[in-house]
Amino acid sequence: MFNKMDRDDPRTPLLGHAPNSRVRRTATRLCSLQSWKRRLPVTIWLPKYTFEFLLRDIIAGITVGLTSIPQGIAYAMVAGLPPQVGLYSSIFPGLVYSIFGSCKDVTVGPTAILSALLAKYVAKSADFAYLASFLSGCIIMLLGILQLGFLLDFISKPVICGFTTAAALQISASQLRSLFRIAGSSGGTFIDAIINFFTHITTIHLWDSVLGISTIIALILLKRAVIPVSETSSICRTQLAKSWQYVVRARNALVVFVCAIVAFILKTKGLTPFALTGTIQGGLPNFSPPPFSTEVLNKTLDFEDMLTVYGPEGLVMPLVAILESIAIAKAFAGATSVDGTQEMIAIGACNIVSSFAQSMPATGSFTRTAINHASGVTTPAGSFFKACLVLLAVTLLADAFYFIPRATLAGIIMVAMFSIIELTIVKRLWRNSKIELVVYALTVVMGACVGLEYGILVGVCADILRALAHTARPNIHTSMFKVGNQDCVSLVLVGALSFASCERVPRVVRGVRGEWARARVVILDGRQLHAIDYGVAENLISVILDLEEDNRRILLWNFKESHQQLFEDLHPGFSEKFVNGPSIDQHILSMCKHHWFCNMNELSMS
Amino acid sequence: MFNKMDRDDPRTPLLGHAPNSRVRRTATRLCSLQSWKRRLPVTIWLPKYTFEFLLRDIIAGITVGLTSIPQGIAYAMVAGLPPQVGLYSSIFPGLVYSIFGSCKDVTVGPTAILSALLAKYVAKSADFAYLASFLSGCIIMLLGILQLGFLLDFISKPVICGFTTAAALQISASQLRSLFRIAGSSGGTFIDAIINFFTHITTIHLWDSVLGISTIIALILLKRAVIPVSETSSICRTQLAKSWQYVVRARNALVVFVCAIVAFILKTKGLTPFALTGTIQGGLPNFSPPPFSTEVLNKTLDFEDMLTVYGPEGLVMPLVAILESIAIAKAFAGATSVDGTQEMIAIGACNIVSSFAQSMPATGSFTRTAINHASGVTTPAGSFFKACLVLLAVTLLADAFYFIPRATLAGIIMVAMFSIIELTIVKRLWRNSKIELVVYALTVVMGACVGLEYGILVGVCADILRALAHTARPNIHTSMFKVGNQDCVSLVLVGALSFASCERVPRVVRGVRGEWARARVVILDGRQLHAIDYGVAENLISVILDLEEDNRRILLWNFKESHQQLFEDLHPGFSEKFVNGPSIDQHILSMCKHHWFCNMNELSMS
Repeated sequence: MFNKMDRDDPRTPLLGHAPNSRVRRTATRLCSLQSWKRRLPVTIWLPKYTFEFLLRDIIAGITVGLTSIPQGIAYAMVAGLPPQVGLYSSIFPGLVYSIFGSCKDVTVGPTAILSALLAKYVAKSADFAYLASFLSGCIIMLLGILQLGFLLDFISKPVICGFTTAAALQISASQLRSLFRIAGSSGGTFIDAIINFFTHITTIHLWDSVLGISTIIALILLKRAVIPVSETSSICRTQLAKSWQYVVRARNALVVFVCAIVAFILKTKGLTPFALTGTIQGGLPNFSPPPFSTEVLNKTLDFEDMLTVYGPEGLVMPLVAILESIAIAKAFAGATSVDGTQEMIAIGACNIVSSFAQSMPATGSFTRTAINHASGVTTPAGSFFKACLVLLAVTLLADAFYFIPRATLAGIIMVAMFSIIELTIVKRLWRNSKIELVVYALTVVMGACVGLEYGILVGVCADILRALAHTARPNIHTSMFKVGNQDCVSLVLVGALSFASCERVPRVVRGVRGEWARARVVILDGRQLHAIDYGVAENLISVILDLEEDNRRILLWNFKESHQQLFEDLHPGFSEKFVNGPSIDQHILSMCKHHWFCNMNELSMS
Repeated sequence: MFNKMDRDDPRTPLLGHAPNSRVRRTATRLCSLQSWKRRLPVTIWLPKYTFEFLLRDIIAGITVGLTSIPQGIAYAMVAGLPPQVGLYSSIFPGLVYSIFGSCKDVTVGPTAILSALLAKYVAKSADFAYLASFLSGCIIMLLGILQLGFLLDFISKPVICGFTTAAALQISASQLRSLFRIAGSSGGTFIDAIINFFTHITTIHLWDSVLGISTIIALILLKRAVIPVSETSSICRTQLAKSWQYVVRARNALVVFVCAIVAFILKTKGLTPFALTGTIQGGLPNFSPPPFSTEVLNKTLDFEDMLTVYGPEGLVMPLVAILESIAIAKAFAGATSVDGTQEMIAIGACNIVSSFAQSMPATGSFTRTAINHASGVTTPAGSFFKACLVLLAVTLLADAFYFIPRATLAGIIMVAMFSIIELTIVKRLWRNSKIELVVYALTVVMGACVGLEYGILVGVCADILRALAHTARPNIHTSMFKVGNQDCVSLVLVGALSFASCERVPRVVRGVRGEWARARVVILDGRQLHAIDYGVAENLISVILDLEEDNRRILLWNFKESHQQLFEDLHPGFSEKFVNGPSIDQHILSMCKHHWFCNMNELSMS
C-alpha cells in the first residue's frame, strides 16, 4: 500500500511505478555494496577524514559535552533516576551514534520529554528505565528495518506541537518543586504539579528560590548577549566576539560551574543554604544485560509483569524517540535529505547498546543538536568526542558534581523548556484552520491534565476522525449542460470513494431530483475515480435504479474496467449503462435517437 | 461536520446549504405539529385505520407470533436465561413498537446475535440482561435524539457481513451441545464451541441427535416445499396453495408442536428420551425498575461494578441492535425512505420499557420481519397482535412448553443461522476488491476465534486504516504541455489533502525534478482543492522553495483565498506565486517576458 522505499532514496523517480520494477529495484539495492555502506555511515565518512575535520569535531564535541553534563544530570532527576544514569545515557549512545548515525549534527542523549514519560515507571523501580531503553531500542530498530517510518506521517504537525507544548508545560511545572525547594511530589501531570506547588507554597526556601530564579535570568541574558561586530571592528574585537560565542554555547556548564563554586565556598564556611545534588557514584557503570525482572515492594516482577506495567501506552516512548530524532535531523539536514530508515536503525542501536550500561532511553536532543550545529561539527565524530568528554567527567569529576545546587538544574531545565514551547502555530492555526487548532488544543489539554501519552492518543484519534469526515463527504462537482435541447447534469466522482462515503455519495446523486429536476439525463463522470468500495457501489446502484424508475436516464462515463466489473457483478445487466470515449455528447445523442427513453421524455430533440 | 438532518427528510434539497438556512430549517421543523407527529407514528396511521387493515394485521400478527414463541424460548436459552424471558422480550417491545415504530414490517424481539453477545454477562447473573436492555435502550434513544445515526456509516458492508457470518457460526456451533445433548459448555466463541463438541463427542445421546437432525431436515424441506399453481389450476388447488403458505410461514411453531406432542406421548408412557425445556414460569413478569445492583458469587456488585463488567465492549450490543434494525427496515421499506432517527427512538423506547419487565435486549429480527412482510401486514398494529398472541401463550400455555425438546429448539436456531450466512459477498469481493475481502476475513476470523465484539472492532479499524491509506496517497494527476516553446508540467491537487498526505504530496511535487526534468515551469492546479492541512502546506512550501533554488519557476493557480492566506502566513512573500484566472498560459508568457527566470533558463522563448 505504501511506497516507503522511494522516500529514502532521492535518486529513484517518484511517479508511476510498476510493482514488478519495484521488487527488482529493492533486490538490486539489497545486493549492492553501496547500500550496505549506507547502513554503516562511518565507512563512508571515515576514509575521507582530515585533520581539519578532527579539530572542528573536537571543538564541537567539547562544547556539546559541556551542555550534556548538566542536562544529563538534570534529566536523570526529572525521571527520578540517580544522576550518573543521565551521564551514562550521554556516553554510550554518543559512541554508537558516531558509527551508525547519518546526520552529522544530531546529538543523542537523554531528553526532557522521554524523562518525563519515564518518571511514572521509575517511581516503581529504576530497572524499568534500563529495560525501557532496551525495548525502545528494539522497537525503533525493528520499525527502521521494516521501513515502517511512514507510520509517523499519521501524527500531524498540530499533534506534535501540542504534545511538545504539553510536555514542556508538565516538565517546567514539575521543576517548580526543586526551583523553590518546596515539599510534596513533582506530580505526574502539569495539573498535579501546579496543585502540589500551591498546596505546599508555604514551604518555599528563600535561598534556593533566589538561586533558581537567578539561574533562569542568567541563562536568558547569556543567550541574548551578543558582542556587536561590524566590518570596521578591530581584529581583537572580532576575536573576542568569536570567543564569546563559545561562552554563550557553554552557558549551561558555566552557570552550573559558578553555582557549584558558590555552594562549595559556602560549604567550606559551614553554610548549606541550597539543596545540592549530593553524592554521584563515579566511574563506569556495571556492564550487564538489561534487567528482565525486578523487585517492587518486595514482590518479584518477571518480564511479563514488567510489560504489563508498561502497558500499551509504553509504546509512546519509542514513538516519541523516533519523532524527536527524525524531526531534528530534518530541521538540521538543510538541503540534503534525511535517511529516515538509517536514523531509526542508529537510534535503535544506541538504545540497545546503552541498555547494557544502565542507561535511560536516549534520542536526538534539540538543544544539544543546535549547539553541535552552531559549533561547526563536520561528521558524526563530534558525537564521539562529546561522549569522551562526558566519560572523563563522570570518572574524574564525580565528586565535584556533589556541589551542583538542585535549583540551578531546575532553572536549566525550565529555560530549555521555554524554548521548545512554540506559540506561532496557535496564531497561524487560529487564522487559517480552526479545526486543526481544536486538535492542537485537545492534545495540549489532555497531555497536560491526564498524561502526555493520552494527549498524543487523543490528538491522533481526532485527526483520524477529521480525515474520515473528509472521506465521508467527498466533493462531487455537479454541473448542468445541454446536448441539443436536452438538459443534462453531470456529477464528477473524484479520488477514492471509501466505505465512509456510502451514504453521502448516493444521497448527492439522488439529489439531482431536487436541485436539477429539469435534467432527464444524468452523467456520472468516472474519469478521476480511482477506487470505489463495495458498499458505495451497492448503494449507488440502488439510487441509479430509483432514478431510472423516475424516468431519468443515467450514463456512467469512462469508468475503469474493474469498476465496471464490480457494478455488473452486483447487478447483472448494469454494464449497458457504461459508456467510454473522449466525448459524452455523441452517446447522449445516439441514446436519444434509439432509446425508449426519448418517447417518455417531455422534451423533444432539436 | 455531518449534515445528518437532510438524510431523514427526503423533501429538503440536498446540495449546497448555507449553514444559516440549515439552522432556520431545523428550528421551523422543531416547531411544526407535523414533525412531532412523525415522532409518534401511531398518530399518523391510527386515524386512517380500516377494518380490512385490522383483518390483515391480525392474520400477520398470529403468523409472526407462532414463530416468535419458539424463537423467543430458543434465544433466551442461547443467552442462558430462563425461557419466559425470551417471551417477555417479544411481548413488551412489540407493544411499544406499535406506538413508536415507523416501519410496518419490522418485528422487534430477541435476536440470536444479541443473545450471543449477552451470554457471557448472563453467565454471571441474569440481572445483567435486564440492565443491558435498559442501558442499550437509553444509548439507542440518545443516538436517535442526537441524530448520530451517521456513525453507523463507518461500519462498512464487508464488516457487517463478516460480523453476521461470525455470529451465525458461533451461534450454530453453540447449539451443537443441545442438538446432540453432549456434556460440557456451549463455549464463548465458535472455536470454544467446536473444541467442546469434539472433546465431549463420546457423550452424544442418540435420540436427541435424531430429533435435532430431523428438525433441521423438516424445516429445510418445509421452507422449500411449494404447491405449484398455474393459471389453469382449480380454485381448490389455488386455495390449498395459499393455505400451505401459512403452514410454511408457521413452520417453526408446527415443528415445535409436533415434537412437543411426541415428547408428551412418550412421557405418558414413562419414556423421556429427549432433554426437555422443563418448567416455565408462566404469567406476567414482576414489573419493577431494572436492577442497578446484583449479586455474583455472594458479592454485591453496585451499578459502577456492573458497568465495569460490561466494559467498553458492552457498547457493541446497542450498536448491533441499531445496525440490525436499520438494515432490516431498509431492506423491507422498498421505495419509501427509512426515518433512521425515528427507528432509533422506537427501538430505544422498546428496550427501556421492556427492561422494567425482565426482558433481554430486543431489536428488529430478520426472520420474523420477513414473515410479517410476507403475511401482508399493513401497519405497525401487526406488532400489537403478535404481542397479544405471545402474551396469551405465556399465560395459558406455559405448562405445555415444558414438553418442547431442547434439540428441536437447537435445530430451529441452526436453520435460522444457516440462512443469515451470506457467501455471495465473498465471491464478489474476491473478484472485485481483495483488500475488502481481507477486512471481511479479519472480521470473521476475529469474531469466530476471539469474540464477536473484537471482530467488529478489528474490522472497523482495518477499514479506517484503508481509508487513511487512501487519504495518505491522494492521486495527483501530472501532465506536460508547452506554452510557446516553454515546457511546463502541471500537477492537479484534488479534494482534501489531510495530514496523512503530508509526506506523499510534497514527494510527488519534488518528483518533477526526475520524471519531468525538462520542464522549468511547474503549475500547481488548485481549482479542485477543497482543504489543505497545516502540515501539508508547510512541507509543500519547503519543496517549492527547493525547486526554485533548482532554477524552476512554480505557479500556484486558482487556489482558494483561504489557502493563499495560509501559505502567505507560513512564508511571508509567498503570495506572489499565486495566480488566478481562467487561463494559465498568459501568466506563463508574461512571467517569461518580465522575470529573472527566463534569463537563467536555457530555453529561449519563441
